[in-house]
Amino acid sequence: MPGMPATLVGISLATVSESTLLPISSYARRLSSAAKLAADAGVDLLLVSPGPDLEYLIGSRAQTFERLTVLAIAADPDSVPTVVVPQLELASLTGSAAGDLGLTLSSWVDGEDPYALALDAATANPVVAVSDSMQALHLVPIAERIGATPTLATDVLRELRMIKDDVEIDALRTAGAAIDRVHARMGEFLRPGRTERAVADDITAAIIAEGHTSAAFVIVGSGPHGADPHHEYSDRVIEAEDIVVIDIGGPIATGYNSDSTRTYCFAEPSAEIAAAVETLERAQTAATEAVRPGVTASSIDTAARDLLAEAGLADAFIHRTGHGIGLSVHEEPYIVGGNDVVLRPGMAFSIEPGIYFPGQWGARIEDIVIVTDSGCEPVNVRPHGLTVLDGR
Amino acid sequence: MPGMPATLVGISLATVSESTLLPISSYARRLSSAAKLAADAGVDLLLVSPGPDLEYLIGSRAQTFERLTVLAIAADPDSVPTVVVPQLELASLTGSAAGDLGLTLSSWVDGEDPYALALDAATANPVVAVSDSMQALHLVPIAERIGATPTLATDVLRELRMIKDDVEIDALRTAGAAIDRVHARMGEFLRPGRTERAVADDITAAIIAEGHTSAAFVIVGSGPHGADPHHEYSDRVIEAEDIVVIDIGGPIATGYNSDSTRTYCFAEPSAEIAAAVETLERAQTAATEAVRPGVTASSIDTAARDLLAEAGLADAFIHRTGHGIGLSVHEEPYIVGGNDVVLRPGMAFSIEPGIYFPGQWGARIEDIVIVTDSGCEPVNVRPHGLTVLDGR
Repeated sequence: MPGMPATLVGISLATVSESTLLPISSYARRLSSAAKLAADAGVDLLLVSPGPDLEYLIGSRAQTFERLTVLAIAADPDSVPTVVVPQLELASLTGSAAGDLGLTLSSWVDGEDPYALALDAATANPVVAVSDSMQALHLVPIAERIGATPTLATDVLRELRMIKDDVEIDALRTAGAAIDRVHARMGEFLRPGRTERAVADDITAAIIAEGHTSAAFVIVGSGPHGADPHHEYSDRVIEAEDIVVIDIGGPIATGYNSDSTRTYCFAEPSAEIAAAVETLERAQTAATEAVRPGVTASSIDTAARDLLAEAGLADAFIHRTGHGIGLSVHEEPYIVGGNDVVLRPGMAFSIEPGIYFPGQWGARIEDIVIVTDSGCEPVNVRPHGLTVLDGR
Repeated sequence: MPGMPATLVGISLATVSESTLLPISSYARRLSSAAKLAADAGVDLLLVSPGPDLEYLIGSRAQTFERLTVLAIAADPDSVPTVVVPQLELASLTGSAAGDLGLTLSSWVDGEDPYALALDAATANPVVAVSDSMQALHLVPIAERIGATPTLATDVLRELRMIKDDVEIDALRTAGAAIDRVHARMGEFLRPGRTERAVADDITAAIIAEGHTSAAFVIVGSGPHGADPHHEYSDRVIEAEDIVVIDIGGPIATGYNSDSTRTYCFAEPSAEIAAAVETLERAQTAATEAVRPGVTASSIDTAARDLLAEAGLADAFIHRTGHGIGLSVHEEPYIVGGNDVVLRPGMAFSIEPGIYFPGQWGARIEDIVIVTDSGCEPVNVRPHGLTVLDGR
C-alpha cells in the first residue's frame, strides 16, 4: 500500500460533500451550540478527532490514522470552524456536511505541521479541550505546543449530545421499529437443535434486511449462557427447555442505533421461572413509569432495583439499569446508582433490568425510551413477557 | 446491550490464556527488552493500551472501550508487568500470553479507580510514557494523577518493534508467500468488462482463501484510476487497453501483514508505456539492491528516485518509496527522504516506487524486504514487470 504522496491531484471539498446524513441545519445548530458551550466552560478551542463527536457535529465518519484529522471549533460563535485534514485523505470527508456548512478546510501534506494548523484559531496559551477519541499520538504533540494537558471536550459537549433533537428522535424511532421487526420474526430463527451461532447468523442477516446498515451486537444467551449478561453466542446447541435471552441492535443509515432485548422459550415455563420473569417485567415497567423530567438517572435505577429486591431478586440483578444511546450504543446518561444527572426532555436511554442465575438461566427485558415533557416514549413496543415460540 | 455488571461470575486468567499466537519466549523477551529500554530512556512506567503495541508485547488483540484496559510495565526489569482490565472484559485476554507469562492481573469493577491501579507500580512523580493508541478519555485522567502530560511510548519501543526476530521474519515470509499466490491467480479475476468492484470482491475472497484472516486493503486501479495511489476500487468497468494497478494485503493468523503491488494489462503495451514501466522496474531493483545494514532509510528512497529522475520521471513519482510493516501495515521505518534511521538486520519494509500520469494511467511495483547481514531478502517473488493477462 503506497506511502505519503507529497502532492496529489486535487479533490475539492465540493466534490466530497454531495450528500449529508441529516439536514444541514441540524449540524449548523450543533456547531454553534458547541462554540457557545465551550465559551461558557472557559474553553478557547475544541479539537474533535474522528469518532462519535465528529459524526455528531459534522456528519463525518472519517477514521483515525497516523496523520492528523481534526475539527477545530473556537469558542467564538461567529468564527467558522476549521477541518484540518491530510490532503490525501480529503475523500474521508465524503458525505459529511463539511462542504455545505462552509467550514474552513485546512488540508496539509507531509512536511507541514498539522498541529500548528489545528491551533491556528486559538489565542495565545489557549485552554484546549479534545474529544474522548483523540489518540495519544496526536494529543501529546498538541499538549507540547500549548504547554499543558488538554481537558476533555466531553465535559463541554455532554449536555448537547444528551438532549436529542426532533431529527435524532425520529432516527431513534426508526431504529427502534426496525429492531422490533427483527424480534417479531424471532420464531423463524430461534429453535431447539440449532446452535446459538446459527441463530445469531440469521439474526444478523435480519437486522440488515429490516433496515440497519450493520449488526453492532447479537447476543444469543441460551440456558446457562443467559446468566452471563455479556455472553455473545457460541456453538452450544439450544435445548427445548432453555430460556433464551436475545439482545440485538445496530445503526441505521443516519448512524443512530437500536438496542432491544427480549427473552424467549419454547414451552410454558415452570411456575418459578414464570413468576421471576413476571417480576422482572414489573420492574422494567416501574422504571419506565418513573421516567419524567426533573428526576435523577439514579432514581430510575432504584425503581427497577427496589421492585426486584422486594421479590428477593436483588442479588440476581447484577448490572446497571441502562445507558444512553444515539450515535454510540453506550453514551450518557448512564442509568446507574449514584448518577445525579437530572432527566430532561429529549434524553434517550435503555431500561433493561435483568435477572441472572449462574449455571441455570437468565432473563432481560430492554426498551429504548425517550424522555418527553411528562414522562417517556418507548421506541420498542414488542410484548415484554417471556415469549413462547413454537420451536418445531 | 447490558450495562456495567457490578460483579460477574469470575473468569480466571488461566481459562482465558489457553493459546498464544507466538512462542511465549518471544513475548517474554519483548517485555524484558521494553523494561530495559524504558529504563535507558529515563521512563519509569510504560502504559500500553489495546493496539499494535499491546499485541506485540503480550499477543492481546483486546479493543479499546470506555473502561480502562492497560498493560503497565515498570522500568525495573525484575518487576512483573501488570494487566489492568475490567472484570467484565477479562475474556478480552483470551488467546493472549498474559496467563502463560505470569503477568499480574489487576481486574476492577465499576466504582474502583482503574487509573490508580495502572499507576500502582510507579514511583512518586513518575515519568510515564503511553502507547500511541491510548485515547484522550484515558490519557487525560492519567495526566491529572501524575501532574504532567505523558510522553509517547513509541519513543521507547520504536527500536524494539523495528527489528524483527526470527519468528516475526518467518511470519512475514509466510504472509508474503500467501499474497504472492493471490497475484499468481490474478488472471482468474481481472478481465476487461468487469467492474473494479467485482474484481476486488474476488481478490478479497482469494486473499482469505490463500491464508490470510482478512483483506486489510484491496486497490484495483484501472486506467486513469491507476494514477491515484490511494484509489481503492469503484464501479468503473475495466477496458481492454487499461493498465491496472493491484495493491493488496492483509494479516495472517499471527497478525503479521502482507502487502504487495503488481501492475497488469491485457495486451502488449505501447512502446512508451513499456519503456516507462521498465524504468520503474529498474528503480525498484536499484532501491532493493541499495538495502544493507549501515545505510539510511532515506538513501533507499534516493536510489529509486534518482533512477526515475534520470529518465525524466521525477514528477511522476509522488509518494515515499516505502514503509515498515509487521503487526501494522504502516509502521517504522519509513523509507522517505530525510529519514536518517540507519538500517539494521531484521528491519522489514516495502519498496514500492510508482509512476502516475493523472487522467491516463499509473504503475507501481511493491515488494516487502527484510534487511539481512549483507543486503536484503524480498519476501515477494512474483515477476516485477508489466504482466500481460489473457483478458478473455
